[in-house]
Amino acid sequence: MALLDDLKWRYATKKMNGAVVPQDKVDYILEAARLAPSSSGIQPFKVIVITDKGLLEKIREIANQQSQIVDCSHLLVWAAWDHYSNERIKAVFDAMMQHRGLPLETMDQYRKTVMALYEQKGRDWQAHHASKQSYISFAMAIAAAAEQGVDATPMEGFDNEKLDELLQLKGTGFQSTVILPLGYRDADNDWLFPMKKFRTPAENFVEHVSLNTLVTADTQLT
Amino acid sequence: MALLDDLKWRYATKKMNGAVVPQDKVDYILEAARLAPSSSGIQPFKVIVITDKGLLEKIREIANQQSQIVDCSHLLVWAAWDHYSNERIKAVFDAMMQHRGLPLETMDQYRKTVMALYEQKGRDWQAHHASKQSYISFAMAIAAAAEQGVDATPMEGFDNEKLDELLQLKGTGFQSTVILPLGYRDADNDWLFPMKKFRTPAENFVEHVSLNTLVTADTQLT
Repeated sequence: MALLDDLKWRYATKKMNGAVVPQDKVDYILEAARLAPSSSGIQPFKVIVITDKGLLEKIREIANQQSQIVDCSHLLVWAAWDHYSNERIKAVFDAMMQHRGLPLETMDQYRKTVMALYEQKGRDWQAHHASKQSYISFAMAIAAAAEQGVDATPMEGFDNEKLDELLQLKGTGFQSTVILPLGYRDADNDWLFPMKKFRTPAENFVEHVSLNTLVTADTQLT
Repeated sequence: MALLDDLKWRYATKKMNGAVVPQDKVDYILEAARLAPSSSGIQPFKVIVITDKGLLEKIREIANQQSQIVDCSHLLVWAAWDHYSNERIKAVFDAMMQHRGLPLETMDQYRKTVMALYEQKGRDWQAHHASKQSYISFAMAIAAAAEQGVDATPMEGFDNEKLDELLQLKGTGFQSTVILPLGYRDADNDWLFPMKKFRTPAENFVEHVSLNTLVTADTQLT
């Protein structure tokens, strides 16, 4: 199916049936997450995969008791860098240059410019920035799951701090940003399944702007 | 092609050739952006489409002179809510209930819970949250462009404040988050095109965690 059909097919599954997603499909979804673009190609995040029912039970407790967390077969957790540092960025660029068969210092100037920019924005900005990169990867995983006929529930409704503690992320430089249970819909028992998908109508979602329309708007304001 | 092939085909095009992306492909990409999921389905963002060369020239000046901004045929700008409010959220839920043929108050309790949660997080958090939702949509547009054989350059390297000013977003409740020129690669003149795509190796990107591994890690720490 084409992406648009996949996006129409998918929905934020509220009730899963416990069936197990085959490993090749999980691998496909993780590969889409890995191939996602990120700012300067730094990929300041990783994905943690959890299938252990005992651990999923504990996560459910800190995620508003959402049933998908235990009725899924795989829970994906995106964990992003808590800040940028010279060391972290340099490690990525070194690996990138090595992969491309280039001298390690090839992009040194660019790397320093990026780091200087991030430095001046501060650590909160940096954590938000890294988190946003993880959302691009998260979205690619959502698209990949739909393409594979796998249901998924994009979730922010969990206690980030408690999840970081539970997964022992504290002190590792990573913090959880968003989670995605993978499984299969239990359509008969899912209140959202029969509902019509709603999105902002295209005429409100898309706006066309030109110098002309801007001048007009400006004229109207004065 | 499958999504994984699309993601391998695409790259952050550094040089475009000025060819025009057909309108049906642009519409397809915008529709993918519109169908993207968002937290509670609120979609706190829109997409601004710019084809006006004069305006693109002005944007290029506040975007590190990146040539794709004028060599693309369409520039997409994601603009997200600067904060959440009862009124904004209620308008979305009203439209959603109407679309589903349900009484407007059906999800009132949920809507109030969401707003109370957002309220307590503060406006900076809200702007970041809305921005992150726009990144999911942005990612879907990137995937859709690749599927359609359209090149695109995900870009954060522009002056947000100046772009908001230029697009007269100030006072509208929206602020620019990220931009995406759409066009076609000029492979012969693009330094990035011949480079091998680099991503974090899968063995570092994906981590499997269970209660057992966590207990072990914990044991090692004490």
